[in-house]
Amino acid sequence: MGKGRAKRGIPSKSEDFNAWYPFIVEAAELVDKRYPIKGMDVWRPYGWKTMRLIDAITHREMEATDHEEVNFPLLIPENLLEKENALVARLKKARETGVDPDELRDEVEEGGFKKEVYWVKHAGENDLDIPMFLRPTSETAMYTMFPLWIRSHTDLPLKIYQMVNTFRYETKQTRSFIRVREIHFFEAHTAHADEECASMQIKQDLEIVDRIMHELCLPIIKAKRPIWDTFPGAWYTIAIDAIMPNGRTLQVASCHHYRDQWAKAFDISYENNEGEQSYCHQTTYGMSERLLGAVVGMHGDDYGLIMPPTIAPIQIVIIPIVKKEGGEAVMAAASELANNLRIVGYRVKIDDRDLRPGNKYYDWEIKGVPLRLELGQRDLDNGNAFSAKRTGGKEPIPLDDASIHVRRLLGEVADELRSRSSKHTDDVIQPLTSLENIEDGKIYEMAFDGTDAHAEHIERKTGLIFLGDATDPFTEEKECFMSGKLTTRRVLLARTY
Amino acid sequence: MGKGRAKRGIPSKSEDFNAWYPFIVEAAELVDKRYPIKGMDVWRPYGWKTMRLIDAITHREMEATDHEEVNFPLLIPENLLEKENALVARLKKARETGVDPDELRDEVEEGGFKKEVYWVKHAGENDLDIPMFLRPTSETAMYTMFPLWIRSHTDLPLKIYQMVNTFRYETKQTRSFIRVREIHFFEAHTAHADEECASMQIKQDLEIVDRIMHELCLPIIKAKRPIWDTFPGAWYTIAIDAIMPNGRTLQVASCHHYRDQWAKAFDISYENNEGEQSYCHQTTYGMSERLLGAVVGMHGDDYGLIMPPTIAPIQIVIIPIVKKEGGEAVMAAASELANNLRIVGYRVKIDDRDLRPGNKYYDWEIKGVPLRLELGQRDLDNGNAFSAKRTGGKEPIPLDDASIHVRRLLGEVADELRSRSSKHTDDVIQPLTSLENIEDGKIYEMAFDGTDAHAEHIERKTGLIFLGDATDPFTEEKECFMSGKLTTRRVLLARTY
Repeated sequence: MGKGRAKRGIPSKSEDFNAWYPFIVEAAELVDKRYPIKGMDVWRPYGWKTMRLIDAITHREMEATDHEEVNFPLLIPENLLEKENALVARLKKARETGVDPDELRDEVEEGGFKKEVYWVKHAGENDLDIPMFLRPTSETAMYTMFPLWIRSHTDLPLKIYQMVNTFRYETKQTRSFIRVREIHFFEAHTAHADEECASMQIKQDLEIVDRIMHELCLPIIKAKRPIWDTFPGAWYTIAIDAIMPNGRTLQVASCHHYRDQWAKAFDISYENNEGEQSYCHQTTYGMSERLLGAVVGMHGDDYGLIMPPTIAPIQIVIIPIVKKEGGEAVMAAASELANNLRIVGYRVKIDDRDLRPGNKYYDWEIKGVPLRLELGQRDLDNGNAFSAKRTGGKEPIPLDDASIHVRRLLGEVADELRSRSSKHTDDVIQPLTSLENIEDGKIYEMAFDGTDAHAEHIERKTGLIFLGDATDPFTEEKECFMSGKLTTRRVLLARTY
Repeated sequence: MGKGRAKRGIPSKSEDFNAWYPFIVEAAELVDKRYPIKGMDVWRPYGWKTMRLIDAITHREMEATDHEEVNFPLLIPENLLEKENALVARLKKARETGVDPDELRDEVEEGGFKKEVYWVKHAGENDLDIPMFLRPTSETAMYTMFPLWIRSHTDLPLKIYQMVNTFRYETKQTRSFIRVREIHFFEAHTAHADEECASMQIKQDLEIVDRIMHELCLPIIKAKRPIWDTFPGAWYTIAIDAIMPNGRTLQVASCHHYRDQWAKAFDISYENNEGEQSYCHQTTYGMSERLLGAVVGMHGDDYGLIMPPTIAPIQIVIIPIVKKEGGEAVMAAASELANNLRIVGYRVKIDDRDLRPGNKYYDWEIKGVPLRLELGQRDLDNGNAFSAKRTGGKEPIPLDDASIHVRRLLGEVADELRSRSSKHTDDVIQPLTSLENIEDGKIYEMAFDGTDAHAEHIERKTGLIFLGDATDPFTEEKECFMSGKLTTRRVLLARTY
């Protein structure tokens, strides 16, 4: 599509992804980066609408799985952070020393969180008695309230979520959606009667992830992060990575099983069936605007974005082809076509600007509208509109049955996006056979049953990062590259965002 | 309804509204005030769902009037506040001295905003070079970007809105929804070619207000605020006040006509048809969670909340009346009834908890569910459910045509709420005939064409606040209370939140 036309300054995606990405997020009017604080973009209407459509999928999934939406204050008092720091320091020490964390209850070290938050210490002309920080995530805020809401086993499971702005004081280079300082964030927090119930929740979370990623047409890697890359305070972390065109992985979601570690720190317990107090087992499941970053990065091409139909703010653009004189019949037909498609639920735009069609095509290609319908007098005479899929392929479709054909064509666009991104994944993932000659843009898999020292050696030698144990292991045992032991553990390594 | 039952500690609304309100917002599980920062409540699922349903009405109105949704960063650099302060100081001085504000361009005084914001001056372990503040509202953030988006008359009107968290460092006593430090806020900002186009926008805003308030069953006062109570930076302000049960007014929305005052300060101009640069004329329209505060305050009764059907998270609660033995047929019928109502779009809950019906009634009355349907074996045998409106009135309805009757009954609940609140308004508003003997709980109206000094005298004498000139003036001229001049200006005075 559009092969014959100039690309007017869009950098080539295949040749220079690092130039293409920041260019396209602004050219497609997703965000404006000219706001006077670095790493805090303005969401423009087209970008925000796309994000809200992604959020709508998440809301739907949450509702279907009995999560309830809440909204917590943005500001958190400093002393709660200290509680979290103490917990994290204790768990870290327990891991390093092999001592039961419960026996380290009184040991407090300085955690790392203080370095990552924005502080509010002044209001009006006053110094605040208790400094507060902007939430980077809401464990401490929520778990302060959980003991007030959970009394007995009938209060369990408690399953809540929120979609809010969170903040990280990023010192690394910022990138729209991928590494920003104000983050549009989703976080689900659950409390359960025991470890097994919490584990079932993680299983449900991963199924939700699969359904969301299907809508976004994104293949993903689900991997249990190695212990040194587990979320502080978690028993284990399963992270979900998307694969960008340059072969670097982008963590777009994560699920954490907390066991009863936070519950012990925040005294979250319930009276069980036997009338005794038990600590809750907790999980969290987080996602962010990185989902949109992955969609932009993965599906775009040299002509702009390509929006998966489910989240496209405009799914169909109708372009009436009219001459200066006449054209009323075409305009009326375009309007009728738009109405017929809107009635069955499609998001449709008629572009009747006084511009040459080629200029219009250019605009909607950049914005990634999945389906274009051109309608001229000759098409109308034939009872057709002329369709062009953003992923390529043109054909006339009968106006009478337009919605049926539109459904098929949008389905084809989604399938083509899935097929392209899956092929990319297959191309990019390859077995690690040697620690030498690591190729740029590749993700490596290997059978691994070695020690942490082995892992560290591999990371240092290859410059790759352990993503962890894939949730889909090898179907038969293989020999570990380092230890020689037989294992089905399938460990993935990549360069990461 | 519920007359025979104990109210279990709910304070009497009519006798002690100031005790009833804070009690009920927590008892109905709208918010939890136990979060460890004063004036920052946790929105619980029931409260947040209600707020989001109010927001949904606003979204719908915005979409129908061609506003586009954006999302701006929360943080604003200090230097933008200084720009605003200079503007406000200049306008204030111009008002006081009668000098054209444009001639005061270089005069800068300290404005009042600095006293009302939360400051971020630290991040991680660093002092920030440029202090930032949490938005109290987004004029300065947005108008920094407007010059980048507006070039020619084809870019106008620019109509955007956002729903975000805003912050005010309140030093007065806080109250859920009414006076809080983190505010769930709606703000629409528009830029137009000239003053008249901006005035048309204000007119449209006020029509939107009317439609929203109809859904919320709230009568309102729309009044052009007196000059001393105009939003800083505005040419004029039209404020929308709801009337609480104690007769105090609560400003729930406001519209501001900025003329080109902000445009001059932020250099927002466009090339007009003649090829010359003109400054834009701007408006804003704001609302907040106070809408929910007004709904809670106005419609509740001694038994709890009463939710207007449009924004009720649960519109219909179905209570199966079953004995220990049997009851399968009743449960099945309740389930079928719920499905039939859900299919046509109602939000329905079946309460099948193992509790006595009276306890269930109590819970749903507190939460203000507008319609209860009881279903026992005898009802089922008669082909009926037994309905009870939250505003009073019980009758059997046929299960076959349940959705038609539910529509009627919910309509009756809404009408009853409108009728009650309108009656309250009529009772409360009375003519001001003397500056003595001002009654508590009343709002006063008067013909007024006096001076600011007259107004100040009245405010001091009566302890009332000028709400300003009602947008619906007297239909015939009356004599001004102070100046004796004939006027149709209808000025309202009240005690305010």
